[in-house]
Amino acid sequence: MTKFANRKGPIRLGMVGGGKDAFIGAVHRIAARLDGEYELVAGALSSTPDRAQESGAALGLAPDRTYDSFTAMAQREARLKDGIEAVAIVTPNHVHYAAAKEFLRRGIHVICDKPLTATMAEAKKLVAEAEKSDALFVLTHNYTGYPMIRQARAMIQNGDLGAIRVVQAEYAQDWLTEAATGKQADWRTDPARSGAGGSTGDIGTHAYNLACFVTGLTPTSLAADIQSFVPGRRVDDNAHVMLRFEGGARGMLWCSQVAPGNENGLSLRVYGDKGGISWCQEDPNKLWFTPFGKPTQLLTRGGAGASAHAARVSRTPGGHPEGYLEGFANIYAEAARAIRANREGKQPASEVIYPTVQDGLAGVRFVDACVRSSTRNAAWIDLT
Amino acid sequence: MTKFANRKGPIRLGMVGGGKDAFIGAVHRIAARLDGEYELVAGALSSTPDRAQESGAALGLAPDRTYDSFTAMAQREARLKDGIEAVAIVTPNHVHYAAAKEFLRRGIHVICDKPLTATMAEAKKLVAEAEKSDALFVLTHNYTGYPMIRQARAMIQNGDLGAIRVVQAEYAQDWLTEAATGKQADWRTDPARSGAGGSTGDIGTHAYNLACFVTGLTPTSLAADIQSFVPGRRVDDNAHVMLRFEGGARGMLWCSQVAPGNENGLSLRVYGDKGGISWCQEDPNKLWFTPFGKPTQLLTRGGAGASAHAARVSRTPGGHPEGYLEGFANIYAEAARAIRANREGKQPASEVIYPTVQDGLAGVRFVDACVRSSTRNAAWIDLT
Amino acid sequence: MTKFANRKGPIRLGMVGGGKDAFIGAVHRIAARLDGEYELVAGALSSTPDRAQESGAALGLAPDRTYDSFTAMAQREARLKDGIEAVAIVTPNHVHYAAAKEFLRRGIHVICDKPLTATMAEAKKLVAEAEKSDALFVLTHNYTGYPMIRQARAMIQNGDLGAIRVVQAEYAQDWLTEAATGKQADWRTDPARSGAGGSTGDIGTHAYNLACFVTGLTPTSLAADIQSFVPGRRVDDNAHVMLRFEGGARGMLWCSQVAPGNENGLSLRVYGDKGGISWCQEDPNKLWFTPFGKPTQLLTRGGAGASAHAARVSRTPGGHPEGYLEGFANIYAEAARAIRANREGKQPASEVIYPTVQDGLAGVRFVDACVRSSTRNAAWIDLT
Amino acid sequence: MTKFANRKGPIRLGMVGGGKDAFIGAVHRIAARLDGEYELVAGALSSTPDRAQESGAALGLAPDRTYDSFTAMAQREARLKDGIEAVAIVTPNHVHYAAAKEFLRRGIHVICDKPLTATMAEAKKLVAEAEKSDALFVLTHNYTGYPMIRQARAMIQNGDLGAIRVVQAEYAQDWLTEAATGKQADWRTDPARSGAGGSTGDIGTHAYNLACFVTGLTPTSLAADIQSFVPGRRVDDNAHVMLRFEGGARGMLWCSQVAPGNENGLSLRVYGDKGGISWCQEDPNKLWFTPFGKPTQLLTRGGAGASAHAARVSRTPGGHPEGYLEGFANIYAEAARAIRANREGKQPASEVIYPTVQDGLAGVRFVDACVRSSTRNAAWIDLT
Repeated sequence: MTKFANRKGPIRLGMVGGGKDAFIGAVHRIAARLDGEYELVAGALSSTPDRAQESGAALGLAPDRTYDSFTAMAQREARLKDGIEAVAIVTPNHVHYAAAKEFLRRGIHVICDKPLTATMAEAKKLVAEAEKSDALFVLTHNYTGYPMIRQARAMIQNGDLGAIRVVQAEYAQDWLTEAATGKQADWRTDPARSGAGGSTGDIGTHAYNLACFVTGLTPTSLAADIQSFVPGRRVDDNAHVMLRFEGGARGMLWCSQVAPGNENGLSLRVYGDKGGISWCQEDPNKLWFTPFGKPTQLLTRGGAGASAHAARVSRTPGGHPEGYLEGFANIYAEAARAIRANREGKQPASEVIYPTVQDGLAGVRFVDACVRSSTRNAAWIDLT
Repeated sequence: MTKFANRKGPIRLGMVGGGKDAFIGAVHRIAARLDGEYELVAGALSSTPDRAQESGAALGLAPDRTYDSFTAMAQREARLKDGIEAVAIVTPNHVHYAAAKEFLRRGIHVICDKPLTATMAEAKKLVAEAEKSDALFVLTHNYTGYPMIRQARAMIQNGDLGAIRVVQAEYAQDWLTEAATGKQADWRTDPARSGAGGSTGDIGTHAYNLACFVTGLTPTSLAADIQSFVPGRRVDDNAHVMLRFEGGARGMLWCSQVAPGNENGLSLRVYGDKGGISWCQEDPNKLWFTPFGKPTQLLTRGGAGASAHAARVSRTPGGHPEGYLEGFANIYAEAARAIRANREGKQPASEVIYPTVQDGLAGVRFVDACVRSSTRNAAWIDLT
Repeated sequence: MTKFANRKGPIRLGMVGGGKDAFIGAVHRIAARLDGEYELVAGALSSTPDRAQESGAALGLAPDRTYDSFTAMAQREARLKDGIEAVAIVTPNHVHYAAAKEFLRRGIHVICDKPLTATMAEAKKLVAEAEKSDALFVLTHNYTGYPMIRQARAMIQNGDLGAIRVVQAEYAQDWLTEAATGKQADWRTDPARSGAGGSTGDIGTHAYNLACFVTGLTPTSLAADIQSFVPGRRVDDNAHVMLRFEGGARGMLWCSQVAPGNENGLSLRVYGDKGGISWCQEDPNKLWFTPFGKPTQLLTRGGAGASAHAARVSRTPGGHPEGYLEGFANIYAEAARAIRANREGKQPASEVIYPTVQDGLAGVRFVDACVRSSTRNAAWIDLT
Repeated sequence: MTKFANRKGPIRLGMVGGGKDAFIGAVHRIAARLDGEYELVAGALSSTPDRAQESGAALGLAPDRTYDSFTAMAQREARLKDGIEAVAIVTPNHVHYAAAKEFLRRGIHVICDKPLTATMAEAKKLVAEAEKSDALFVLTHNYTGYPMIRQARAMIQNGDLGAIRVVQAEYAQDWLTEAATGKQADWRTDPARSGAGGSTGDIGTHAYNLACFVTGLTPTSLAADIQSFVPGRRVDDNAHVMLRFEGGARGMLWCSQVAPGNENGLSLRVYGDKGGISWCQEDPNKLWFTPFGKPTQLLTRGGAGASAHAARVSRTPGGHPEGYLEGFANIYAEAARAIRANREGKQPASEVIYPTVQDGLAGVRFVDACVRSSTRNAAWIDLT
């Protein structure tokens, strides 16, 4: 029996983290608002009480639903008649597990930023919590929400590329080319808060997740050579990874935060024995598809070659670019579909897809394997 | 004294038009939601009562605030204590004037889709209504909301391009390449509802507005050769226009709805004696800038070359593409800033920019001039 | 009976113009060498005797075949047993007619740079000379030599685009943004040497020729608004032109030499009722093709979608870019095929295509019409 | 004392291989012709006598200089007063060593296609032969001839990128996606003729050479995971390689011949602590340069940002694309400069650069290391 069997209307949402100057919290809020499916009503926006209150007021939250800690929020909201039905966790990584646990145990759905946790131990514990909870757990590997990524996945499932042979994934940035300061750089380069991975955790997990999501392949092992180029940096800022997949496909993954000229250069190329595709996050409405032996086609979101898989997560006609926020909002929209089905004790429709706690575990395992492989001179690490 | 002097919190919004199957109404609603500044509380969503009620229910509007006509809505909402503070008018063009008038006369702010009206006569009357009203009038020439368009405008104002010589604007689509049917094609090719212009009104006005907005130049005359290529079509589906501007700059504008391979190919290139810029709507986060005699620079939204003019209408870091909906939402955000200032009897900050009723009049005049010029074998028509 | 009935082997070539510091002469020489079909053996490389001798020596010409004037060269070479079979005329425009006449009258084939002449009167006289000569006349509208341009033309002939409706041609440069000096700028902005057209003659003729070549359409009239933006410039440096074609198609042509950020931005887009194509000179190995209602295809030279029309003027596999010089060399290769057929008193194979003296006349007429139209406030000028 | 101390004029060239249906022989001939520096006068164009004669006749070679074997050619040409001064070796890889030796021992300069040889043993012997010969040895790693590659190298030498950290090189093709037949596929997938490497030898060596050429870095070790995806293929058709360089830079190299949608997708990206660059062979006139913290610049061959290093190997103004053949011809032009200096017993000017026999040895070592690493489960192989 679900906790929210009688709920109607918009989903009441709480937020952990995301106070003033946070980056990803604001993104989650826009994503939640975009389709009108959620209503933000509570928050534990900062671990600093003054900042928590100030941030809550700025967002128009009622003072009595602006909490100083996620524990307080979980306890009280769970008892309120109109308490939150879902919570967005947008803190630094090391807080994810402790916060998620509080809500999952009270049957409140969790929408959590990635990577899942800062450590493998926490990741496994969070999987256990999620599995024993009636509540849903949604991880915001937001790039899986892009319409043309959905289409790419469907094309591969449909056999349009044949048997997959080669997967090239990368995510390049340049914002940490020099020793950086500021709230974002600070925690993301602190292993105590971000976990053992720097670029591997922050962006490598996105590339890894995207490669798996689109191809449907299961990685079996990896060999990684990771670096911390900036003097004094305590986590990796660049990683070269070779991948092997079940069935014999091979891949490469490069992530870097020290590659000048790259802003959010997440790209994926997949090649099979019947065709190839190419996609870049910075130009996300386009999917290049080459059926082997025929001209390359430019498939556009909303265009003649777009499928129903792209259309169901699109909001505008072709040629009107949708971007990062719409893709992010698609994760929230999928979560909303699942939450609404959950109200009725049902599974959502089969086409509803969102990243799960298992995807999160795979991501933390990826980071862990990269670090261990690199310590052992890029030895192959088993991922299964 | 403004009608809403005591209002606080989100702006209560009504909508005229935008019922089931409408395209632009849904866009306006997303744009209104994105930043959390508006709350949709009332609607006259269709001129067909059943459809109006059905559409209102689907949007979660209260039944007593779902109206069968914009007149009824204007009358009742104006009397409600918590009545709407602003209305979005998203009907076919021929309804804009009559609807806007009802709200302007009652001090309710109007956010109206473009083109302003279907005829010059209506356009002039609407200008008069807007000018005598205390309420604001905002026209959704949404492309002016793109951050890099704001930056381009600021660069030109700053003299980065020197004296402007040449302006090349175009907006190409292909969706009307064949005789089209369906709700969207239907009214947009019916002169009684769209006005005398087809492609000129629907998209040419966007290109024309964008060229003027970015360059700051005043067009003085145009010569147009317009066509209706599809047999039986009653409005133009392609137009070639030569432009002359005050100060001697010259321009060309091409709009077409019969150009296969173009989805929403709105682009603008401006050349001065010190440099040139180029921008395309389908890749809106990039602005190409060439200072004469130096390498071309790729300025990106959020990147190293982005200015405060772009930043203030941005929501995410560089490399995370923002698109059509964010640009549209920026018009709503600017309108919200103006409305909030209006509550306090003030002007908004000087950097707040939105298209006005005068821009709308200029757009209708553009369509009118294109039609008249073409009738006279592309003779020059005065625009001043 | 052709003058060179018994010739075998490479075609002995002379050159008029193209001495030290010339730009286009060097291009012609590379184009002639590239396929090994020509052997440069004589030259009247400059009208200044010292420079003529010096330039001839630098190119390894025999001193007795380095002439001080084209008249001397024509007279002597025509009498030599192993005299030149063809001459390349690469002087400023005002010399084309006088030089070409000398060789045509002696049965020596002429390969002449564009535009054909500096004036309409000369153009007509040159047509008459060419028509009464047994020798061939080839005009180097070199962009017609690009493989994907050949393919585009063949596709349109084949009906792949259906009935053509819209033609958008442009050629934008920036090198004359400021008052320029130097050999190239000097004569190209001097009406006595370049003719009445500046940008219209130098580059507009290329865009015009390309549009006609690819579409196969016959222009019937044009309306032009031409400008000389740089103070003191005696010829146009920017032109906006509207075009009407037989059968109802319409077009726009923009040429400019004052558009910062454009190097040699020659592009062509053509739209019919069944599809559209787009091509840019700066990326010439790609042709974008959209069959209406289907995804856009990227056709590449040497790729899966390339036809025999592209292949016969290609030298390397797909993905190995061929450029300007190869396209130029294709004109020389086509001329060589025609000259070899001429040796045997035959017509070349039907697929051999090169720009003719009639194309040259059409180009000069285009310039003349632009100038006259602009003088008459962009009135329509008949081109038939 | 050089053998050709008294020679003047064009360099008489012989060719080994390159008969009918050969691909790269024709490319070498165009490259040799393009600047008029060479004259092809002799050939051992095929190991099949009939085909050798037929091919020689088709190229206009004198019958007595059309040889049935490279040995016969080397012997006789070395004795002729006007014998060849240089020979181009364009056979399958396994013939390179035996052929080159014959000419080097007779003081005839060798211009040899890559990879240097089919085996490490041969490569070392060829290095020894080249080092004890007075003749020059030039390896046609033709991509080093591209102007913007020259510029990139010069920029890195100049410190524009700071200390290099990351090198991403790739060369992707698709022509061997399926089991292929035909002359080209045949020998390139036969280890007896191509050597142990398939894609690694044919294209991986190009990417590897380019990375080293541009960065100036010395690779110290590599780890490779190579595959033969097509059933029955005896050489690799895909390779993933991790690279380590002296000084701490790291790199990745991917080469593939089974990546549908890639024609000749050779690309190089280099990142240092002060900036980054990106270049693609299929669009070779552009070099993207990002000084860290500033906007990305588009540097074009012949454009405002092009340096003298690019200009000295350019033939046309910016915006007139130069391509594969011009880049290839630049190797021949550099070789010609060296050969001319050699005639006078001098070294060529310091800016003259061409790939040497040592570069060839490095390439064969790269292939050998890839194969050995892959056999040992991607263990690191020392390259020093």
